[in-house]
Amino acid sequence: MKYSNLFGKTIKQTKKDITAVSHKLLHQGGFIRENVAGRYFMLPLGMRVRQKIINVIREEMNNSGALEMLAPTLHPLELWKETNRTNETGFELTTVTDRRGAEFALGGTAEEMFVDLVRNFKLSYKDLPFNIYQFSTKFRDELRARYGLLRTREFTMKDAYSFDADEESFKKVYALMAETYTKIFEKMGLKTYIVAADNGYIGGEYCHEFVVEHEIGESRFFVSEDGNYCAHEDIAKFKREEINTREKEKPFEVFDQPQWVQTMEDNQKHYKLPASRFLKNVVYKNRTTGEIIIAVTRGDLEVNKSKLEHVLNLVGQLEDATEEDLHKLGTKTGYVHSWGHKAKYIGDLSLTTVKNFIGGQKEDTTDSRNVNYGRDFKCEMLADIALAKAGYLTENGKSKFVEKLGIEVGNVFQLGYHYTKKMHDATFIDKNGKEVPYYMGCYGIGIERTMAAIAEIYNDEKGIVWPEIVSPFKVHLLVIGLEDESVKKRAEEVYKKLLESGVEVLYDDREDVTAGEKFADADLIGCPYRVVVSKKTGDKVEVKRRGENKVALHNLTDLEQIVQRQMI
Amino acid sequence: MKYSNLFGKTIKQTKKDITAVSHKLLHQGGFIRENVAGRYFMLPLGMRVRQKIINVIREEMNNSGALEMLAPTLHPLELWKETNRTNETGFELTTVTDRRGAEFALGGTAEEMFVDLVRNFKLSYKDLPFNIYQFSTKFRDELRARYGLLRTREFTMKDAYSFDADEESFKKVYALMAETYTKIFEKMGLKTYIVAADNGYIGGEYCHEFVVEHEIGESRFFVSEDGNYCAHEDIAKFKREEINTREKEKPFEVFDQPQWVQTMEDNQKHYKLPASRFLKNVVYKNRTTGEIIIAVTRGDLEVNKSKLEHVLNLVGQLEDATEEDLHKLGTKTGYVHSWGHKAKYIGDLSLTTVKNFIGGQKEDTTDSRNVNYGRDFKCEMLADIALAKAGYLTENGKSKFVEKLGIEVGNVFQLGYHYTKKMHDATFIDKNGKEVPYYMGCYGIGIERTMAAIAEIYNDEKGIVWPEIVSPFKVHLLVIGLEDESVKKRAEEVYKKLLESGVEVLYDDREDVTAGEKFADADLIGCPYRVVVSKKTGDKVEVKRRGENKVALHNLTDLEQIVQRQMI
Repeated sequence: MKYSNLFGKTIKQTKKDITAVSHKLLHQGGFIRENVAGRYFMLPLGMRVRQKIINVIREEMNNSGALEMLAPTLHPLELWKETNRTNETGFELTTVTDRRGAEFALGGTAEEMFVDLVRNFKLSYKDLPFNIYQFSTKFRDELRARYGLLRTREFTMKDAYSFDADEESFKKVYALMAETYTKIFEKMGLKTYIVAADNGYIGGEYCHEFVVEHEIGESRFFVSEDGNYCAHEDIAKFKREEINTREKEKPFEVFDQPQWVQTMEDNQKHYKLPASRFLKNVVYKNRTTGEIIIAVTRGDLEVNKSKLEHVLNLVGQLEDATEEDLHKLGTKTGYVHSWGHKAKYIGDLSLTTVKNFIGGQKEDTTDSRNVNYGRDFKCEMLADIALAKAGYLTENGKSKFVEKLGIEVGNVFQLGYHYTKKMHDATFIDKNGKEVPYYMGCYGIGIERTMAAIAEIYNDEKGIVWPEIVSPFKVHLLVIGLEDESVKKRAEEVYKKLLESGVEVLYDDREDVTAGEKFADADLIGCPYRVVVSKKTGDKVEVKRRGENKVALHNLTDLEQIVQRQMI
Repeated sequence: MKYSNLFGKTIKQTKKDITAVSHKLLHQGGFIRENVAGRYFMLPLGMRVRQKIINVIREEMNNSGALEMLAPTLHPLELWKETNRTNETGFELTTVTDRRGAEFALGGTAEEMFVDLVRNFKLSYKDLPFNIYQFSTKFRDELRARYGLLRTREFTMKDAYSFDADEESFKKVYALMAETYTKIFEKMGLKTYIVAADNGYIGGEYCHEFVVEHEIGESRFFVSEDGNYCAHEDIAKFKREEINTREKEKPFEVFDQPQWVQTMEDNQKHYKLPASRFLKNVVYKNRTTGEIIIAVTRGDLEVNKSKLEHVLNLVGQLEDATEEDLHKLGTKTGYVHSWGHKAKYIGDLSLTTVKNFIGGQKEDTTDSRNVNYGRDFKCEMLADIALAKAGYLTENGKSKFVEKLGIEVGNVFQLGYHYTKKMHDATFIDKNGKEVPYYMGCYGIGIERTMAAIAEIYNDEKGIVWPEIVSPFKVHLLVIGLEDESVKKRAEEVYKKLLESGVEVLYDDREDVTAGEKFADADLIGCPYRVVVSKKTGDKVEVKRRGENKVALHNLTDLEQIVQRQMI
C-alpha cells in the first residue's frame, strides 16, 4: 500500500491524558482512534494487526479441532434469567428492548447462548465431544475504561465453549486448550503465565488466566520461587505460620486500655507486640440483602474481598459497610467486635495460629485479652479469606511467593455442570439412552487486549517493534530523493517486485516530507524490515531490521529471501 | 473435516413454518439455526460459506483501493441526533443506555460514525480521496423478519464510506464501486440488475440497488424491453399517455348520481367509461405532525406512497389515514373530495392527460363532472406519485416496462453533502486553504442475504448446489462399506492425500448410516465434488459433480487436478 493512500496516518503528538505506552503508540502510529471513552475504531493499520492476531488464533483453534461459528450479538434476556445471571454483578450487563417489547442482553460472554443452541439439537454421546468458538464483539459496561485497548467497553473476543460427556473427557479438552493458548501467544511473541484464578461471574470450579507479565497489568498474581505454584491473588493459598501456639491459654479478661489506642498501629505501639497478636475485623454488606458480614483475621493480615465472596458464594455481591451500617449494628469504626454483633462472622484460617489474642471487644477505655478462638469466640466458619503478599510461603511451606503484575490476555474455565444443570434440557442421550447434562468448559482470548499487550512489550523510545507475524506490513519501503526521476522509478520497481512476490509492503511515497520524517514514521509504525531506496543505494536497497541498528545493502533477490524467512 | 466431528449435522425435516427454499435448505443442511425470530446462529458449515463470501468481497474491495477498518457497534446517540436521524423512521433504531446514562444506537448503518471519525482528523485535499469499509454486525428492528437469512434483525454488512473533494472525483468512485460490485457478485455466480432506486432513509440524491432476480425477493423493479432503463418501483418514471386531451372543456357541473355508485368499479359500470376518466383520491397522514395529505390521481393509476413521501421530503413519515381521520376532515371513505378539504393536495402528473374528469366532489346522490385540472381545481403541486406497472411506457414512450422481483444483495448511494453539511466540521482543507465539506458516498453488501440469495438460485430438489467459490468444502468424500478394513484404509488415505494437497474435504466417516443416507446428505450440503470410495472403486475413486449426473472413475492425481480447477 502506498502511504499517500493510507487513511489514518501518523501524528506527531498524542493527547496528554494518554498514559499507557501501547495506547500512545497505537494512537500516534495511526492504528486506533477512540470514538467515546472505551470504544475504539480500528484504523486500516490497526485492522491489519487485528486480522493477523485473529488468523493466528483461528489456525491454532482449528488445529485443536475446534469449530468456528457465530452467535447473534443480542441475547434473549430470558436465557440470562434462566441462569440467574441478570441478578449478578460482574459484566455489568447492558440490556435493550426492541419495538415488540422483547428484552435482550448485549453479550459480555455467551455461555447461555451456546447452551441454548446445543440443547435444541438433542444430541447423543456419538456427537460428543465438540468445542465451538466464535470471534465476536463483546460488551462490558466497565465503570472505568482505561489504558486504550487494555480495558475497553467493547472488544472482540474469541470465545469457545466445549461440550463433553463427562469430566474425564473434558479434562483432555482443557489441557488441549491450555496447550493451544500457550502456542498461540508464543507465536505472537508473548510469554504467558498460566495463573490459577477465581471463576467469579463465569461460574464453575476452577479456571486459569493467561497473563503477560507487565507492570501496567491489572492481574496481580503470585509465583512461588520454586516455580511450582502460580495463582491469582484472589485465590492464592499460603501458609499461615504459627505465631505462639505453644503458649498456654490464659484466662479471658476485659481490661482497661488508654483511650488513644485506636488503630492497629496504636496497638503495636502501646503493647510493643507484632500486629499478628491482635484481632482485626473488617465489615462488609451484601448489596442485595443488606446482610452484614464481619471478617475476622489476624492483625497482620488483610482480608481479600474476592476470597470472602467466593467462600460465601456471593460473587460480586459484597460492598464495604458504611459508617451508617456500623451505627445500625450499634458500633462505629475501630470499635467493631469479633463476636456478638448481629452479623455473619467469617474467620480467616490464621485465627488458630495465635494464642491469647488481644482485642475483639474494644470499647472507649477497655478491650479484651487472652482471647482464644474456639474457647472465647467462634465464627460461622474458618476459611481462606486473607490477602496473599510477596514473601508469604506456599501452603507446603517450601517456597516463597514472588508478586507479579500482568495483562490477562486469555482464560480457560472449567464450567462443569454450572450452566447445564441450571438450564432446562441441556442434556444429551448417553450410551444407556439416559438424558445426561453436558460437562462444559469455556475459553476466551481478548483480541484488542492482546494487540495492546504486544505493543506494551514490543516497543522502544521510537515506536512499536511488531513481531513479524502480527505486523501490519512486512516491509516499510522508503524512498528518499523522489525529485530524482531515476530514484523514483527504482522505488516503484522495488515496490512492484515485492508485491509480485507476495510481500506486504507499506510504501512511503510522499514527496513533501523529509527523510527524517519518513524514518521516524517507519520506526513509529514498527514493521520488521525498513527498506530504503535512494540515490546512494544504486541498484541495491538498504535494509534494516526494526529494533536493530545494523544497516546493509542487498539486491532485490536477497531482500525477498530475507523477508520470506518468518521470524517472531 | 470428518463429518463425525461436525457440530450441526443435517436433519431429515424442517419445521413447517419454514417456507423459503434457502431457509429450508440452510436449516436442513446444518448451516444455520434460528435463535429467536430474525436472529441466527451460523453453524460451522454456514460459517465457512459466510467466510468465503467475505473473502471474495474483501479481495475485490481491496483491489478497488478501499481500506478495511472497524467501527464500534454502539454509536453515541448524539451523532444520530446531529443528523436528526433519531426522529426519522426507517431502520427502526434500537437504543441502549449505559450505567452512566450515556445513550447509544445499535447501528443499522454507520454514516455518522465514519463522518465523526474522519472529521476529527482535520485532513487536507492531499489525503483525498479515500474509501473506508468494514464488515460489521448491523441491527434493524424489523417489524416482520422472514424467509430465514433473507430478512433478519441482525446481520453482517460490508459497509463502505467514500470521502471525496468534489462531485467529479466522487463519480469515479461510484462507478468503480458499481464495477466492483458487479464483479463480486459475478464471482459468486450471481447475475445482478443495477436498479436505480430511492435513497430513502439513507439520504442523498441517487442510488442503485444490486438485485438478483427471484420471485421471493422484496424488491419490485421495472426493466424496459429495450434494456435502456432499470428502476425500482418507488422511482420508476413512466409516460402518462394522453387520454382525451383534444376533447373540448365542457362546463363544470354538479349532477345527480345513483346512490349505489360508490367505487371505481361502480363508476366504470354506471358510466361505461374506462377508469382513466375518473378522479381518484387517496388520503394519508403525517405520523409526526398529523397533517392530512390527499393524493389525487387519474382513476386507472394507483398512488405509490414512497414516491409521495419523496416529493414531500417525508421519507417514512406517511401512514394511511383512518376512518377517524376522514371523519375529522368532515368526510368518509369513498366520499373524499379532490379539493376543498383542510388538507395538502398533491396531484399526479396524469391529471393533465384527461379533459372533463368525472368525480372529485362525491356526495350521497351527487358528484361533479366536466372537471378540468387548472380550471376547476388545483393541487399544491403536480408530481410523479403514481405506481408504475408492467406494460407502462418509459418516459420517452419508446419501450414497455417488464416487471421483475428480486433480492437486493447490495447497494451504492450517492450521499453528496447530506451528512457533511448536517454534521459540524465535517470538512477538509482545500487547495486554497478553505474548509470545504466532504462529498460522500456509501456502499453496502448484506453478507447473510447474499448467502441466502445464492442458495435460492443454486439448488435442486435434493439440496443446495454451491458455486465452488463459496462452497463450505470443495470435496465431499464418502466411504461406503467401512466394515471392510481395506476400504476404510483406502478412504483414510484419500482423505489424507487430499488434505495434504490443500483441498478442503468433508469426509463422511460415519459407520452407522446407509450409503443412501450419505448420498442424500452430500446432495443436501451441496459441495461441488462428490468423491466415493468403496469396494467397487478399487484403487480409483468415483467422482461426480454436484448438479450433474455423470459419474466417472479417476485416480487420485486426476482428482486433484480436477478439483484444483476453480469454477463457478
